[in-house]
Amino acid sequence: MNDSNLVLNTFRRPLPEALAQALRERFGERFSVAQAVRDHHGRDESPFPAAAPDAVVYANDTAEVAEVVRLCRTYKVPLIPFGIGSSLEGALLAVQGGISIDVSGMNRIVAIHPEDLTATVQAGVTRKQLNDALKDTGIFFPIDPGADATLGGMAATRASGTNAVRYGTMRENVLALEVVTAEGKVIQTGTRARKSAAGYDLTRLFVGSEGTLGIFTEITVRLYPQPEAVSAAVVSFDEIAGAVNTVIQTIQVGIPVARCEFLDSATVQALNAYAKTTLREATTLFFEFHGSASGVREQADLVEQIARENGGQDFEWATRPEDRSRLWNARHNAFFALLQIRPGCRGISTDTCVPISRLADSLIGARKILDRASVPTAILGHVGDGNFHAILLIDPDNPDEMAECERLNSEIVSLALSMDGTCTGEHGIGLHKMEFLRDEIGEDGVDLMRRIKEALDPDHIMNPGKIFQC
Amino acid sequence: MNDSNLVLNTFRRPLPEALAQALRERFGERFSVAQAVRDHHGRDESPFPAAAPDAVVYANDTAEVAEVVRLCRTYKVPLIPFGIGSSLEGALLAVQGGISIDVSGMNRIVAIHPEDLTATVQAGVTRKQLNDALKDTGIFFPIDPGADATLGGMAATRASGTNAVRYGTMRENVLALEVVTAEGKVIQTGTRARKSAAGYDLTRLFVGSEGTLGIFTEITVRLYPQPEAVSAAVVSFDEIAGAVNTVIQTIQVGIPVARCEFLDSATVQALNAYAKTTLREATTLFFEFHGSASGVREQADLVEQIARENGGQDFEWATRPEDRSRLWNARHNAFFALLQIRPGCRGISTDTCVPISRLADSLIGARKILDRASVPTAILGHVGDGNFHAILLIDPDNPDEMAECERLNSEIVSLALSMDGTCTGEHGIGLHKMEFLRDEIGEDGVDLMRRIKEALDPDHIMNPGKIFQC
Repeated sequence: MNDSNLVLNTFRRPLPEALAQALRERFGERFSVAQAVRDHHGRDESPFPAAAPDAVVYANDTAEVAEVVRLCRTYKVPLIPFGIGSSLEGALLAVQGGISIDVSGMNRIVAIHPEDLTATVQAGVTRKQLNDALKDTGIFFPIDPGADATLGGMAATRASGTNAVRYGTMRENVLALEVVTAEGKVIQTGTRARKSAAGYDLTRLFVGSEGTLGIFTEITVRLYPQPEAVSAAVVSFDEIAGAVNTVIQTIQVGIPVARCEFLDSATVQALNAYAKTTLREATTLFFEFHGSASGVREQADLVEQIARENGGQDFEWATRPEDRSRLWNARHNAFFALLQIRPGCRGISTDTCVPISRLADSLIGARKILDRASVPTAILGHVGDGNFHAILLIDPDNPDEMAECERLNSEIVSLALSMDGTCTGEHGIGLHKMEFLRDEIGEDGVDLMRRIKEALDPDHIMNPGKIFQC
Repeated sequence: MNDSNLVLNTFRRPLPEALAQALRERFGERFSVAQAVRDHHGRDESPFPAAAPDAVVYANDTAEVAEVVRLCRTYKVPLIPFGIGSSLEGALLAVQGGISIDVSGMNRIVAIHPEDLTATVQAGVTRKQLNDALKDTGIFFPIDPGADATLGGMAATRASGTNAVRYGTMRENVLALEVVTAEGKVIQTGTRARKSAAGYDLTRLFVGSEGTLGIFTEITVRLYPQPEAVSAAVVSFDEIAGAVNTVIQTIQVGIPVARCEFLDSATVQALNAYAKTTLREATTLFFEFHGSASGVREQADLVEQIARENGGQDFEWATRPEDRSRLWNARHNAFFALLQIRPGCRGISTDTCVPISRLADSLIGARKILDRASVPTAILGHVGDGNFHAILLIDPDNPDEMAECERLNSEIVSLALSMDGTCTGEHGIGLHKMEFLRDEIGEDGVDLMRRIKEALDPDHIMNPGKIFQC
């Protein structure tokens, strides 16, 4: 926390009145300095203290975003894009003040091309909204972080979710972006072609840049045909090792599972209480299989066999769509269910990801580290990718707990880095993983990132103070 | 050609004697200014005139590459990484002189991790060498451009090949790079984790940068389990439209074909002559299916049905491994087979890629444009991705032919761009698609690329004069 407070205290300066005046004239009631509005845009799902922007602008289209950028550039005032506020890493906090530009009203589905398996949406469209629009087309968009996040936010964070083991993350599924640059120009980073070797991969450079290089206004994503058959299964284990080894072997033999999720007994217990599920309160794996009817059966049989060899019990099938919906809704609510264990708490979530063969060492190692915690903890995650989240439920007003959990978090990250893993699989660096990023990629790697930032945003107005210090 | 000749004439200056001296002392016989060696490193598979470097250094390891970079930086001398010389876009030509750094001797397989489905190799390892090393592991590396290219060159060009429709391109399959930066520092762009949200995606920024941002010394790639069952099929059509519509429908319904290649009758004829195949000389599709035994059967049945509905004839199966090898070797040799049609010719290859629904318009449109050519032409390509190559066989000493074919090439590219496609699916921009890149992404997009180049290579020593003019 010290770093961000330092930034807050050092760099924050009042909003220039001339800028406020210009924005008020241009945007009328869509420009706000009301405390409640600022407060709402100064917090997210992270455990970090709120840092409200000086003002909020609600943009309706790309041209408006570009206007706001040009004005902020003139006055060298920070600009933070805001979707629904579901960052887990403080990416939205206005640690250097400035303008929060709310794009949630830019929620138009621009084009759906079922014949090409692509869709183009404005940045404020959420993943559920997109899938609702696709409902009758026989195709779907697979990326599903826990929250019903905006596509803009998901692209900015390089988000993934439960389907990534089969369908990839936003890295693989964003085909092109419309971006407002730090100069207020509007560019298209790519086309709707499935592959391209046309110069630097600007799309992949912007995906995961957390608002620090430009503001996304439109996102073009890949879509997939609904599988002919879908089947889901739940299996529980007495030992964590049995569950994790089931996952490792499933991935290693190349079974194309669509989803493969780990929930420890604490998470299952929280879900039973919050989501009214009746799962056996033990270490549990959720699987989903997509394919032809016979393909799904083959995959499921192989996984069941692997699970049994590793001590899996009570293999249960969810073949009806409504049962599967209940299962995955419960999974998506797991973080919020855990927060209910301790009223008033905030969740610190680790996000390490390791090569699959190291998953057991990494996850069981994390469990041992968590065993020393004085606060409630749990582990869950997208283990098919080698990615899991250790959740530590802290009292945000207790600095000792925060410090203790930061130490444990650091140990878990160090363990993953020692296994050629990453400190973040899908949540991003945001405010508080800057040191981990340096440990992971080295000072020279961070220096390259800093130079790219400097080249594309020389005035440092784009979400400053995130990913690295400039 | 005018652009590159201009560059050649304007910027080329002699190699500083002090640099030559320093390299000679350090590298001995591995530093060469022999004309034959320079000539070999000043040409590639492109139709552009050779442009020899002033000298060649054969590097043996990363530290040596870094030393050469630091020396060239001191003297502000251009540096061009060289693998096996299979660029189709002039990426290797020393249009501003300088040093060609040959990494083909850096051909050590650093690590194979079958348990994680990853391999790390030095940049000079070729795709066939990697797959030979994997032969007994049950896993394989799918990316297969026509040439037996180095992994370094493939990463630099964002290469793909026949398997990309199922397994993706180098964009999706490079997990991490070891890169020597323009300052001579050695960085790792990523880890072996399958996904990451750790800051800017340096891996994807370097993949496809054609040697203009740094020199790759090690490549870490994803591998895949050998499918349980493989089956290949050949089917021919009287009409191009029937073949193309078969492809479009196959992709749209989501059949996970592993390979899906189009060859026009001119290509088939050239293959029969060159590779001694006995294919029916008509528009032809090659398919390959990967999966479980029953999955492969299901896929193949569906595709056969689609093909028959579109006028497909003589559906032939290649189920024996040796028959499949013959088929795909023939396909990989298609470009060279076509070159034999006209002794002494060079091939101009277009490389457009469009959204799949526009493949028929794009390919049949290209065929109509080619019908006006005064030189032999053919069309073949990775149509499952919407990517194909129109080949124009020109006499390199005849400027009229070159000019004529450049005009036709431009028309084919314009057509693809009008369909939200790209001017290059897999060959890169190199020397000669700079105007197409500008048409595709706009001046502001190219300007961002230029600024990134400036930020990472302020002395413009890394393969200057490629992708865009600085």
